[in-house]
Formats: sequence, structure tokens, C-alpha cells
Amino acid sequence: MPEEVPRGRLEGDRVLLGSTAVPELYEGGYFGRKVDSRLALSLVEAAYLMDRSRIMVSSNGSKLDFKGLFELASSIERGFEFRYVVYKDLRERGYYVQPGVPDFRVYPRGGHPGKTPAEFYVYVISERTPVPLAEMSEPIRVAGQVRKRLMIAVVDEESDITYYEAREKEMSGKGWPGSSGGKATLLEDRVVLWDEEASKSLHNQGFYGKPVGGRLQLSLVESAYLLDKGLIQMEDREGRSLGVEEFRERAGRIEADFPMKYGVYRDLRERDLVVKTGFKFGSHFRVYKQVESPEKVPHSEYLVHAVAEDYMFHLPVVSRAVRLAHSVRKQMIFAYGREGNVRYLEIRRLKP
Amino acid sequence: MPEEVPRGRLEGDRVLLGSTAVPELYEGGYFGRKVDSRLALSLVEAAYLMDRSRIMVSSNGSKLDFKGLFELASSIERGFEFRYVVYKDLRERGYYVQPGVPDFRVYPRGGHPGKTPAEFYVYVISERTPVPLAEMSEPIRVAGQVRKRLMIAVVDEESDITYYEAREKEMSGKGWPGSSGGKATLLEDRVVLWDEEASKSLHNQGFYGKPVGGRLQLSLVESAYLLDKGLIQMEDREGRSLGVEEFRERAGRIEADFPMKYGVYRDLRERDLVVKTGFKFGSHFRVYKQVESPEKVPHSEYLVHAVAEDYMFHLPVVSRAVRLAHSVRKQMIFAYGREGNVRYLEIRRLKP
Repeated sequence: MPEEVPRGRLEGDRVLLGSTAVPELYEGGYFGRKVDSRLALSLVEAAYLMDRSRIMVSSNGSKLDFKGLFELASSIERGFEFRYVVYKDLRERGYYVQPGVPDFRVYPRGGHPGKTPAEFYVYVISERTPVPLAEMSEPIRVAGQVRKRLMIAVVDEESDITYYEAREKEMSGKGWPGSSGGKATLLEDRVVLWDEEASKSLHNQGFYGKPVGGRLQLSLVESAYLLDKGLIQMEDREGRSLGVEEFRERAGRIEADFPMKYGVYRDLRERDLVVKTGFKFGSHFRVYKQVESPEKVPHSEYLVHAVAEDYMFHLPVVSRAVRLAHSVRKQMIFAYGREGNVRYLEIRRLKP
Repeated sequence: MPEEVPRGRLEGDRVLLGSTAVPELYEGGYFGRKVDSRLALSLVEAAYLMDRSRIMVSSNGSKLDFKGLFELASSIERGFEFRYVVYKDLRERGYYVQPGVPDFRVYPRGGHPGKTPAEFYVYVISERTPVPLAEMSEPIRVAGQVRKRLMIAVVDEESDITYYEAREKEMSGKGWPGSSGGKATLLEDRVVLWDEEASKSLHNQGFYGKPVGGRLQLSLVESAYLLDKGLIQMEDREGRSLGVEEFRERAGRIEADFPMKYGVYRDLRERDLVVKTGFKFGSHFRVYKQVESPEKVPHSEYLVHAVAEDYMFHLPVVSRAVRLAHSVRKQMIFAYGREGNVRYLEIRRLKP
């Protein structure tokens, strides 16, 4: 190691270097921040520079080797190991990275601090740590307010990193509501519309239900929406008429998630999107911007999964959902909130 | 409706027809079964034949229309609606289908009752109904005993059907264990092996860990296995030595699923398979039959997800997992059971 490598001192959760380190490390690489005339490095920055033999670090008067610094840093700072691998990876990809909120700020390619604003806020998560919806939506909001994008770096158990971008999504389409009605029966757990004309009309114009013989099988959310809109009448197997409220109450007994799913279904339909089950893709809905006729159904643009306000994102589940959505060229959207105030959160893979 | 259409009578959960129906319906289409000289149809068979105007049905002396029969059948028989759509779909695809255990028997194309044995046992499930692992493995066992295949027909909320085959899977590979050792440290929630030679050897020969600088990052399951095999020594951040039991106990505190995951990891490694994290695919592991060197890593054949003995299969989750696995040309395997007795259940999409 050449004589002139700057020497730093571990103090609390940072490494302090003298003013002579400023030109090379700060001005030459945007490492650390200036404190008076000295340079303060975060532990992640210090470990990165030490691993490249660009600084030496001592603690309580004795020199640390990399293993020593790494073990100490891991004790001092929760999540140090994750932040370290993400910081290292982004730096090695040629980005300038600075400590920030929630974890880092990343500058666009060709940009750097002082020249350009940061492009991304980076949120580092371990694959193992479930993230509450509120904790995911908060950094999205914060980033959005200052026109930054939110990058989520998920570190798996083998220290591989998957990058995602999360953002609020405005949803709207050009579908049109079905017309005309008919009498439907709530059976054990689905609904059959018996009238052939009404069945045809609802299917052809709104892409509702699935034709079976001359009849139309409607899902519970479709039925509730059509009933709500006055487009069908409903009865039970005994021929007793069911109103909107009673039907929704019964549907909730058949499917515990019904109120949550219906809130999102209704909101999407009201935004003129065409909504069908997403079962084959493991999500609640697949969503089309427009379906001109059931004979030429286009590609559906979105997979939408309704989640409760206290939903926990399990990263392996998110990984599977996003990967599957992309493999069929769809956007993966998580929908939450109450009827009348549904919000949409898109999570997509980033390849920085 | 022509005069000569056979007339049946709804009695309990079947429709009884006179002996004159036997030649056309039984001998000509393998509908129903003979009871003395008469023909007994299940409700599903009766509804199917009535919808095609091939029989008439009366109940308590009055003629039923299709709606009437369908509503009655749905009240009499739990799951009638699901079984009906599956029966109809398989019949329309040209298969001979008979009521059986768990739901139907399906004959191979070109075969029929009396000529060939049934090929599949069919198990009909609603997308909405979670299925306990034991309820899934039981029909697999029963079908296997009589050399049948198990077809699972999942009916979604819009009455679309997805077919799967589930079967026991024998797992084995040609990987070889790593050699030589070194000292590793358990950090906050992962393990670093510091020695450069040992790191290289374990990575190159057993495809263990991820090289970071000259070091090797090991996952918890990899570390436990190598420790168990005496291939590494482990200490904590304070330099205290950790034995196998203590390490496994600590790992269990870091990751609640650790014991379950480790049981499967160990079993797969002992079967000479090469096991790495499956995080990017939303499963616990991706598994290779053989990895000759980290420079030419082949395609991994399997995604393996470890589940507890009381696991509930949620069909949308299964759908997503299987679809994703197939999109990357892998087999989706669910692993369960205890260390020393791990079993593997493959679920794959069928296109009948």
C-alpha cells in the first residue's frame, strides 16, 4: 500500500479524514461529505474505499483490516451488509452514489453531485424482511414530491440484487359499459344470467361474463357491479329477489376478499377499463384499456392485485408477481384503498 | 324436441331412466351406469344431456326446464357448478368422462370404458378454495397406486378451467460436494468466508456462495450445510466459535423458515443436486442437476419451494408459481416433510 493513502479514524458511525483527502476522494469521486474542512465518510463508503486500498482506517489507535472494519460496521449499523453490497454494485456500474433518504441518492449516468440533481432515491431491502404497504408508499410519495424516482434494491440471501422501480400509477381506459339487462340467479358461488339476448349484449358490449350455451356465467364482482348499475336483476335459487346490499353481503360470505376486490373492480370499471379475472396469472384481475369486441380481444395491459391497507409485501412474492407480469408483457399493479379512493402502485423491474 | 327423447325422473342425487335409454346413452356415449336394467345418471351427466336436448327430466311429476334442473342440482350437490363446467369441457374436447373418485375418471383419447383403463383421475377445485397439502397428496397417492395420473381441474371465478397434473417426483443430480474449508463469520444475517483460497475452492467445486472481492458470501442454508459437513469453521462477530447446533439455532432466529428450508436444502444437496436461491423466481431454490464450473453455469431444471406439512395451497399462488416456472422452462416442485424424509410434488400445466 503506497505511503500517501489517506488515513481515517472511525468515530461513531462514520470515518473522519483530514482535509488532504478532500481533493482526491470528494472532488474526484464524490465520496463522503465535507465537515468544516475535513471529510466524513459513511461506514459503507469507508468499507468500499478500504476494500480498494484507497484509505486506511484505525479505531482507538489501532489499524483495522477489512475484516475488522466490516465486522465492526455490521455491529454498529443495522442493515450495513445490505447497503454495502448495493452501494458497491451501483458504484461498480459507474453511478455516483451518496448516502441519503431512505438509503442512497443515485445520480444519472454522466451526472454527479453539484452538476445534476439526483435521479433516484434508493431504498435497500432484504429479501427476508416483509415491508408494510405504508412503508412502501411513503418513500414513493416523498420521492414523487421532489420529482425523484424511487429505486428499490432487494438483496437476496446470496447477496444478489434485484432492482425495482415503484411509482404511483394513473389508471384509465376507453372501454364502455354494457347495456340492457336480464334476470340472473346466484347459485352456490357464481351467477348465471339465463336470458340469451341479455347475455349476448352484456358480453359483446362490456365483455362481461363467460358465455356457456346461450347463458352467461358472471363472476361475483361482475354481478355486483351490474346489479349496482341497474343492468341486471338478481334472485337466489329459491327465486327470492336480491338487492345490491344483500347480494354484496352474500358475496362477502362466499369470498372473504370480496369487499376489497369489489372496491378495486368497481373503481377500474368506472375509469372505463375492462376488467376480467387474472387467475391464470395469479393476480385478481387482468385489465384491458379497451375491448372492441369479444371476437378480437386485444392484449391486456395490466395485472392488478387488490391488497388491504395493512398488506405486507413479501419480496419473494413481489418478485414472482413482477417477473410473471413482465413475462407476459403486462404491468404489475397493486391496488389499495377504499371504494372511492383507490390508489395504484406499479412495481417494475429496473435494469440499471 | 322430438317425441322419442328419453324421459328421466330426478330421485335424490341422480336421474333414473328406463331400459330403453341404455343403448343410446350408455352404449353409445358411456353416460351413466346401469342399475339393474335401468340407467342412472349423475346430476352433472343429466344436466349435460338435458342442455343438448337428449333427455327430458321431471321432478315430483312436473317437467323441469334447464334452469330448474340446474338450480335444483346446485342445491342438492355441493360443488355441482364446478363439476358441471369441467365435465362439459372435457366431453366437448372429445373425452369419455365418468363419475369417479375424487370427481371423474377420464379415458385416453380413442379409449372408452370397457375397452381401455381410465388414464386420469380428475380432482375439481374452485380457485377460491384453499387446499391443504394432505388433501392434495392423498389423491396423488391413490392415483399412483392404481397407475393413474392425477388431473387437477381448477375453475376460476369466470368458469374458465386450468388443468394441472400433480405427481410425486424423484429428485437426483450429479453435482459434487465442495472440498476444503476456511474460517467464516456470521454477520447480521449472512456469512462471509474470508479466506481467498477456500472461497475459490468452495465456489468452483460446489458452486457455493457468491464471490465478492476475494471473499465468499454464503447464505444461511449453505453455511449450515458446509458447517455440518465439516467444510468450514464458523465464528460470530466477536470471534466466538459457533458449532452446528448453535449456528442453526441462530439462523432460525434470523429467518423463521430456516429449519424448513434447511431440511429441503440438505436433502437436495445429499441427492447430489446443486442448489441456489430461487428468489428471482419467487421460490426458495433453483436447482441444477449438475454445475461443472461457475464459468459455464447451465440452465437450472427445477424451482423448489419448501412448504410446511400444514401448508395450504392457494390456487392463485400455485397458478402464478407454475406459470412463472414454465415461462423460464423449469419444473415447479413443492417440497415437504421432515429432514431425512423429504418428499417432492411436481405441479405442471396440462393442456388436454
